[in-house]
Amino acid sequence: MESNPQRHAEKMAARKASRDRIMATKTILKGLLIVHTGLGKGKSTAAFGMAMRAIGHGQRVAIVQFVKGAWSSGEKTVFEKFPDLVTIRAMGEGFTWETQDRERDIAAATRAWAAACEFMADPAINLLILDELNIVLRYDYLPLAEIVAALDARRDGLHIVVTGRHAKAELIAAADLVTEMTLVKHPFKSGVKAQAGIEF
Amino acid sequence: MESNPQRHAEKMAARKASRDRIMATKTILKGLLIVHTGLGKGKSTAAFGMAMRAIGHGQRVAIVQFVKGAWSSGEKTVFEKFPDLVTIRAMGEGFTWETQDRERDIAAATRAWAAACEFMADPAINLLILDELNIVLRYDYLPLAEIVAALDARRDGLHIVVTGRHAKAELIAAADLVTEMTLVKHPFKSGVKAQAGIEF
Repeated sequence: MESNPQRHAEKMAARKASRDRIMATKTILKGLLIVHTGLGKGKSTAAFGMAMRAIGHGQRVAIVQFVKGAWSSGEKTVFEKFPDLVTIRAMGEGFTWETQDRERDIAAATRAWAAACEFMADPAINLLILDELNIVLRYDYLPLAEIVAALDARRDGLHIVVTGRHAKAELIAAADLVTEMTLVKHPFKSGVKAQAGIEF
Repeated sequence: MESNPQRHAEKMAARKASRDRIMATKTILKGLLIVHTGLGKGKSTAAFGMAMRAIGHGQRVAIVQFVKGAWSSGEKTVFEKFPDLVTIRAMGEGFTWETQDRERDIAAATRAWAAACEFMADPAINLLILDELNIVLRYDYLPLAEIVAALDARRDGLHIVVTGRHAKAELIAAADLVTEMTLVKHPFKSGVKAQAGIEF
């Protein structure tokens, strides 16, 4: 790190000028297709944070949960305070290793996707979160090409966030913004139990 | 993927049994030191989502912003709806490339850390978010060893989330849960402008 104040100020001024030049080139406004994937934590939580931020701007948010149990009581309590701005459809039947019934999982995923299509067609919705859609796609419960084409053909001004580990390459190719949450260290590994407000 | 229903059910049953065995070993309840780092998006947003989830459980949250501008109007509008549960101290003076004054940055960081210490000592606080502390530590604006020791000595039941790119190795070593947000793809690269509800 630079300890000379004069040189520090010069370096920082150069950095600011560079950043200002980059920002001036950003002029397109469009609805983004955003993907949160990876084996780390924070995929659904960051989507939840984005939902809250949109609500703060008075925007309308719809959430389709493709897998039951991914979001829990903490989130729901908060969303319920904004009934005019948030619509949630919890369609999943639980993780596949809980249900052990592929046909039922496919039927639930198909219903969830139908709900997603309704929200995509509703011009009142500004942000659509398709929580754990990646898991459903990974197990081939829905036709990948058709889903990616529909997401890609979203209307102007609709932002869509898709969460879940193991995002398909075709979805990443169609996305505007992809973040991979990587697990560096996890307390489960040292025997710490899931806790209210942190894990659920 | 397995298309035979019988084999699918067997595989999922084995996975559930394995997961149940792992969960049964998790018995320690403690306040976690959590780090969100990496060059990708979602570090502060996931912390914000955790704050909202904690609020949903009726827990009290304190946030110290070490760098001004990292969180913005969307978040603040939401937090203001829960004045009894959320306290925010915005201490930073803007990104260093905006201020170009190292001495002022150090003074601001020192004040922010004093606020963090107050919250750590307040038994009413359940979750403390030290937003962009990593940036301040990276520029050596605060004494690393002292900060890590204080975080490590947090009281029982206090969860602390530290955000910001370039987390120091000493902090990662002390943390219980570390997630790295990796940038896979970013719309700025294709000329898309920052938008309300997504970027701020």
